[in-house]
Amino acid sequence: MFKDATPEEIDQAVMLSDKAFREYRRLSLKDRKRLMYAIAARLENSGSDIIHCAMEETNLPEARLKGERARTILQLRQYADACEQGDWLEVRIHRANHTTGAPDIRKTKVPLGPVVVFGSSNFPFAYSTAGGDTATALAAGCPVIVKGHPAHARTSRMVADLIMEAVREEGMPEHVFQHLHGTSFEVGRQLVMHPGIKAVAFTGSLAGGKQLFDWGQQRKEPIPVFSEMGSTNPVFLLPEKLQEESASIARQYAQSITQGVGQFCTNPGLILGIAGTGLRNFKETLKEEIKKTAPQKMLHAGIAKAYDTHKAAALQQQGVNVLANSDVASHIEEGVPLVATVSGEAFINNPLLRQEVFGPFSLVIECKDMAEMAQAAGNMEGQLTSTIMGTEKDLLEFSEVVEMAANFCGRLILNGVPTGVTVCRAMHHGGPYPATTDSRFTSVGADAILRFVRPIAFQNWPDHLLPDELKDANPLGIRRIEE
Amino acid sequence: MFKDATPEEIDQAVMLSDKAFREYRRLSLKDRKRLMYAIAARLENSGSDIIHCAMEETNLPEARLKGERARTILQLRQYADACEQGDWLEVRIHRANHTTGAPDIRKTKVPLGPVVVFGSSNFPFAYSTAGGDTATALAAGCPVIVKGHPAHARTSRMVADLIMEAVREEGMPEHVFQHLHGTSFEVGRQLVMHPGIKAVAFTGSLAGGKQLFDWGQQRKEPIPVFSEMGSTNPVFLLPEKLQEESASIARQYAQSITQGVGQFCTNPGLILGIAGTGLRNFKETLKEEIKKTAPQKMLHAGIAKAYDTHKAAALQQQGVNVLANSDVASHIEEGVPLVATVSGEAFINNPLLRQEVFGPFSLVIECKDMAEMAQAAGNMEGQLTSTIMGTEKDLLEFSEVVEMAANFCGRLILNGVPTGVTVCRAMHHGGPYPATTDSRFTSVGADAILRFVRPIAFQNWPDHLLPDELKDANPLGIRRIEE
Repeated sequence: MFKDATPEEIDQAVMLSDKAFREYRRLSLKDRKRLMYAIAARLENSGSDIIHCAMEETNLPEARLKGERARTILQLRQYADACEQGDWLEVRIHRANHTTGAPDIRKTKVPLGPVVVFGSSNFPFAYSTAGGDTATALAAGCPVIVKGHPAHARTSRMVADLIMEAVREEGMPEHVFQHLHGTSFEVGRQLVMHPGIKAVAFTGSLAGGKQLFDWGQQRKEPIPVFSEMGSTNPVFLLPEKLQEESASIARQYAQSITQGVGQFCTNPGLILGIAGTGLRNFKETLKEEIKKTAPQKMLHAGIAKAYDTHKAAALQQQGVNVLANSDVASHIEEGVPLVATVSGEAFINNPLLRQEVFGPFSLVIECKDMAEMAQAAGNMEGQLTSTIMGTEKDLLEFSEVVEMAANFCGRLILNGVPTGVTVCRAMHHGGPYPATTDSRFTSVGADAILRFVRPIAFQNWPDHLLPDELKDANPLGIRRIEE
Repeated sequence: MFKDATPEEIDQAVMLSDKAFREYRRLSLKDRKRLMYAIAARLENSGSDIIHCAMEETNLPEARLKGERARTILQLRQYADACEQGDWLEVRIHRANHTTGAPDIRKTKVPLGPVVVFGSSNFPFAYSTAGGDTATALAAGCPVIVKGHPAHARTSRMVADLIMEAVREEGMPEHVFQHLHGTSFEVGRQLVMHPGIKAVAFTGSLAGGKQLFDWGQQRKEPIPVFSEMGSTNPVFLLPEKLQEESASIARQYAQSITQGVGQFCTNPGLILGIAGTGLRNFKETLKEEIKKTAPQKMLHAGIAKAYDTHKAAALQQQGVNVLANSDVASHIEEGVPLVATVSGEAFINNPLLRQEVFGPFSLVIECKDMAEMAQAAGNMEGQLTSTIMGTEKDLLEFSEVVEMAANFCGRLILNGVPTGVTVCRAMHHGGPYPATTDSRFTSVGADAILRFVRPIAFQNWPDHLLPDELKDANPLGIRRIEE
């Protein structure tokens, strides 16, 4: 339906982006906020056509997509407010010391330059064209080129049109936002390798994210590539808690595993417990719940196929048994919920079982004791989240497991589910590799702006020529640290 | 004199570092501060042997080395105080909202793990074994393995012994600090590629720093590699200022170019002016000053040889002429101060002239007008610093040059010299590639701690089990952002 951007079109887009950067980076925080609010307003008034288009392209239900659009609007406004409020500039002021001769030094942040955004397939609004990456790059002062996701190319185009309308009507630099189509790897490669591009944000698979990262590092001038990739989000069911609440935990998790056909980056793919009555009861209820959960259409044929392939590969591993398979009749491209079990020992010895199966799948790992659970925890790769289900007593007794869980994840949850990511400043959505390619930055919450800026210090500069945030009178009224 | 660490010794060191990490990361900020103060105290009492050893190994004069040791002590204490004060934890607290159902989320920072430090040859104390990288890694909660610089291997060993004494006497985890020798590339490669290493800090040449960076990114699990590399620190002499003060500026710069035999990463290697009386007068005085500046021994034979080679290569370029060469007799391994000139046009057309000549060398670029100066500025690669010498009128008239200068550097200086880096929180010592491999972080000032930590969010965690900095009562009394 859409043609891939040609090498010439990509060159031209980057050139225009760089040109827009020269103007856009000079705009005040208030102006950036105005643009972001204008985009939010257009999304808010975008009516049902765009929702129907997204429904067709992603198979996601109407209510979910309406909710996701509302989240996208909330993000734009929240990050716009944070942009204006200016905490992210992390201003430090060191006044001249005439006794020691130390000069006046003041530090703020400046934008990196043109950013390429590769949206995710599972969030066609909130982590795609007008999503968190675009919003935080615009807040940072960076122009954005979105490579539209081929799995929702029309939706992406419609959102892009809204953004470009906002850009025009607010009198912003014309090419501060651009949108390109591309189904081939080559479009992505050329964008990331282009010397005019200064940062990249991506949400998707490990293979895709790692490839973009590698390209970014192999350039003559390496650039930051923020890939948010796979995660199995291990859950540790501790014994006392499980003894007390096995049925309600099982119901909670059946929901979390199958919600949105399991197509969340925080989907709980590994559940570790210690063999015993508690775990037996948990499994029993989980089985009942999964059996009655209806399969649903996945995002697209490719994802449905990959789900079946990865699920089958996991089930072929030694010691893996099916605990429950949905009993409800399924149709083509639907993801059938399935939970399997394996012993702690078999899990520890088989790295393949640590790989993500993207979809409504989870593996229950039955450890024989605390030591085995700790060993399994010690083997985990980097994760977006880790969850502990435990009583106070459990937490003290399993403190080693808790510490290990903290060590491999970006968010440590107690007595909850990993699905559902609150958009707030205290959120950290990120984690050690391979959850992301840069554990030091978040992709959710206003701190995500920090991905697209770098510090600069002004030495001995006269007050009236300093950026506003550094002026003595603090005309922007932002939080600053002075020494 | 010292043997290179064997592959087995490197393996062992990383294993012990990881073991120390498990203990060290649990220690309070107060305990980390205590260790850093203990190291500072030992350095303060280290007497003259270590100074004499460094004099022998580096050819640097006694006063300079004593001053540098004092700076190292100041850094350790300043970063230790910052460690305890806890701003760098960047705590954000989002309390549960019982109306919306949003959970309690609190974010802090945790250390990355074992860090390898490659010190610089030009700062045997302040950016080597007990230097800024080691100090900030220890503050962050990371154990450190220093690969001693072969050009001051004995000094490095002596400093390492002091640190290990402090570690023992303060009852710290035994291997929180380790020291390895290595003259071969292989030792560095094995350290950076070792899966147990989680970050690398380096100060030195572009070739060395880029190689470490590449190794770090080619690992199965890529890690942050903070290489601070070359910089030519362009200086823009604007016409009105030059007209008024050509002689004093020339004297100031003759000093800055030749200070420490030009062996500073902030040495002004490129000086751009606009042809005219001001620039002519500036060159005249600069010539007189350089002619009478005595050559001095460089850090080691390799650096002296590289200086001569790179200087000769620059002088062979078309249109490059010697302006001044020191008249004072020189001896072997001494760096002879030299300033050359070239036209703006020849400079713009010859990328080789943008390369750093490490030593007491500077190239004066005579631009024919503002447009040519702006073009030269637009061609600059990333730099640690950029300096503008200008009156208010100059700054307004040359605003395009000023903006471009800000765009390629980490510190923008007005009417001063780039040499001399104040150790304070507002300092940014870093810059776009190739000045460093990560423009988002500084290597000087307490914010350098941020290189070695990553965020983690705690969701729904009971107050008494949270890290102290996240507890409701704020027992550490640190600055926090709550929403």
